[in-house]
Amino acid sequence: MPSCPAACHRSPGRRRSGRRLRITEADSLDPRASNPLSSVLRLRPHLRVLVFDSGVYRMPAKRQRPRRKSASKSKVYDMALIQRGARLRRSPFFDSTLKAGCKSYTVYNHTFLPSYYDDPVTEYWHLLKHVALWDVAVERNVEIRGPDGFDFMQLLTPRDMEKCRVGQGKYVLITDDAGGILNDPVLLRLEENRFWIALADSDILLWAKGVARGSGLDVTISEPDASPLQVQGPKSKALMADLFGEKVTALPYYFFTPTELDGIPVLVTRTGWTAEVGYELYLLDASRGEDLWNAVMKAGKPYNIRPTGPSDIRRIEAGILNYGADMTMEENPYEVDLGRLVDLDKSSDFIGRAALQRIKDEG
Amino acid sequence: MPSCPAACHRSPGRRRSGRRLRITEADSLDPRASNPLSSVLRLRPHLRVLVFDSGVYRMPAKRQRPRRKSASKSKVYDMALIQRGARLRRSPFFDSTLKAGCKSYTVYNHTFLPSYYDDPVTEYWHLLKHVALWDVAVERNVEIRGPDGFDFMQLLTPRDMEKCRVGQGKYVLITDDAGGILNDPVLLRLEENRFWIALADSDILLWAKGVARGSGLDVTISEPDASPLQVQGPKSKALMADLFGEKVTALPYYFFTPTELDGIPVLVTRTGWTAEVGYELYLLDASRGEDLWNAVMKAGKPYNIRPTGPSDIRRIEAGILNYGADMTMEENPYEVDLGRLVDLDKSSDFIGRAALQRIKDEG
Repeated sequence: MPSCPAACHRSPGRRRSGRRLRITEADSLDPRASNPLSSVLRLRPHLRVLVFDSGVYRMPAKRQRPRRKSASKSKVYDMALIQRGARLRRSPFFDSTLKAGCKSYTVYNHTFLPSYYDDPVTEYWHLLKHVALWDVAVERNVEIRGPDGFDFMQLLTPRDMEKCRVGQGKYVLITDDAGGILNDPVLLRLEENRFWIALADSDILLWAKGVARGSGLDVTISEPDASPLQVQGPKSKALMADLFGEKVTALPYYFFTPTELDGIPVLVTRTGWTAEVGYELYLLDASRGEDLWNAVMKAGKPYNIRPTGPSDIRRIEAGILNYGADMTMEENPYEVDLGRLVDLDKSSDFIGRAALQRIKDEG
Repeated sequence: MPSCPAACHRSPGRRRSGRRLRITEADSLDPRASNPLSSVLRLRPHLRVLVFDSGVYRMPAKRQRPRRKSASKSKVYDMALIQRGARLRRSPFFDSTLKAGCKSYTVYNHTFLPSYYDDPVTEYWHLLKHVALWDVAVERNVEIRGPDGFDFMQLLTPRDMEKCRVGQGKYVLITDDAGGILNDPVLLRLEENRFWIALADSDILLWAKGVARGSGLDVTISEPDASPLQVQGPKSKALMADLFGEKVTALPYYFFTPTELDGIPVLVTRTGWTAEVGYELYLLDASRGEDLWNAVMKAGKPYNIRPTGPSDIRRIEAGILNYGADMTMEENPYEVDLGRLVDLDKSSDFIGRAALQRIKDEG
């Protein structure tokens, strides 16, 4: 098992091993504990991971051995138990994921998120050795634009947008007045006064619209036609070169560029959720989802590409947090070791500044 | 099959048969169409309903017969395809629903919503003849309180809160500045300046917090410890009398009262999502979910109580809309025949007033 790479996805050059993860309890009240256990992985000396059919969980510190029940016992926490309906949205890649044999979905931002096609350990190793394709269009984007777009984005996040060039992205937090974390999107600065934020699972569109109306700033908040697709793994760079040429593979970490593929408009970012080398293709025309999926799959054949879900094993190993599980509105950035995303010295005011200053001062 | 009752749930004294419902497309691209079809119900001359394993859908007007495929064909839209994890919340009744044999869940307000325990036709008839118990704690409440609580609630909804007494509830819309519908909660007025709104599937907590910060009003927005449980059907009134006495059964439609059951604090409302006689019990102590569930189930035995999911057949028959399917931010109240929930003449301003006035004037 490889060790955690020195540069993890959302924090280049820093290791996150000290971060607290909250999804550690597989206690007796938890139906996960009644699920057949596939395997236990030892990723680092103090990090063992339990792999259940229902997901991957960090081993509780107190327990040496996970609870194990007979596989013949009926599963009370079975994936067969969730229903889909017309209320929930489908991504532009949804039909492709079905055809590709996706075995499980969850719901994220009111939209179906493919969870896996194969067991998590197989997908983990595939990601580490080859290249994986994930539908993450559930990260529904919010667009902020208008004459005061820059000022509004400064208000919305504790990071300093002065340090984000046009063409560059940033991992940011959205905080409320108490300093609580409302979301942790990846932000792209498209123009001086135009930003996209690719959301974790909460309706920041509503928050931003609500904040905007009383802010006195001239800004428009909307949901753009942008659907991210992740291409991750050591062979992703060669695949990107084949698809888009050197312009894309020369992108520095967290930069992006608009381009196209067989007439399909896309925006390619050097980002991901794996701490592996990887890219995200933001599809800019929702009607072309199947075309983009097929083009990437075809070009990826020589690199052994396969569709997978997000790798919880890899992201836990890398210390990448999952909004709703590892952090919520109840936590502030310092509590989850994300203080580096708070620029208390930035010149513009931002929501949560006074609370976060107080929290930091008080330790 | 009984006809639609004169007084449907969310619109006493009015029939909603003219309302447009958008969840009508079971077209060839829709994976629902590949699902085995259980039955077709003719509820009214122009209302036929398709019952699939994956849900209940109104028959498209254009098609005389639904597409039917061999039941032996593998289901691509199978309920086995959705995964649950630590990111998603469980209601205080979740363990009870599992024990009671709930066969399917969906996700609503980041929380698991039990969909059904038996086939939808069986549950429909049970609701119409006996009494049904539903976990709808997914309708996560937002509390608005403070010196300006009344003024803020007036700002948030096009209904006139002058017409809502303390102890009374209202079905309301939350609209944005363009008049688009952000949510359609049931509101309870707890005190002069204190309201709860039981949400449909969108994060109005964030919207309200965002609006509040620039509003100049002194108000606090939070999520109270309140978890609704629906008790619906013709025998619900007798059951309520046994549980809580005559005080509760004397409640007029859309009124509520605080009470308790074996020391469990609850708030009982004369509301529901069925157009049947029914009540909602708002559990006020999340740690007592199993106790409340068991107490109601025990007292309900003589009335043939059973746990069910929300009856899509019954709510479509009654013309009750489902947020996210029948209406979204893209629709205004007039487009979905909910103009009666907009009081353009109310004395206070509200969000969306100018847009809705214009839309109404232009027809």
